[in-house]
Amino acid sequence: MLKVVAKNFADKSKIEEILKLYKELVELTRKEEGCIKYELFQDEKDSSILCMIEEWESRDALDKHLKSEHFSRIVPKIKKFMIKETELNVYNKLM
Amino acid sequence: MLKVVAKNFADKSKIEEILKLYKELVELTRKEEGCIKYELFQDEKDSSILCMIEEWESRDALDKHLKSEHFSRIVPKIKKFMIKETELNVYNKLM
Repeated sequence: MLKVVAKNFADKSKIEEILKLYKELVELTRKEEGCIKYELFQDEKDSSILCMIEEWESRDALDKHLKSEHFSRIVPKIKKFMIKETELNVYNKLM
Repeated sequence: MLKVVAKNFADKSKIEEILKLYKELVELTRKEEGCIKYELFQDEKDSSILCMIEEWESRDALDKHLKSEHFSRIVPKIKKFMIKETELNVYNKLM
């Protein structure tokens, strides 16, 4: 199992548009083979921090996701509303 | 449900000692009331990044955890082996 934490920094004035895009991305991604979890969170103190926390059965499943039609179409649109680069970590579970 | 992501930056030469301390912290924390998940992950590219990803039933449960005997005893010991401040985010789930 791979765990992915993708911490994004949104333009606060665009949160509504961003969430619409994320909604579609989440719905389509959860249907993908090997997608265990794909959940969006918002920081309780700073509403501009939107974090996707994901679980994938394998590296192969994650790589397919990153090349999927919906990822390629939607993520660039989301990125336009971001104020700085995504902090992305891919983790293995230790305990 | 509250989601906590605590991203830590370890001294690579001390990883063994750190993991021993985390093992005890994880075992005791998982017994706490309101603790849904308390899992330690390691970045697949940078082994110095150790991330605790947690789920708590309520803010009250999380606050009790932060004041618990084991947290107060073990976390300062772990911090001595870290090379910079923990990046801590507390999240609410959006979707």
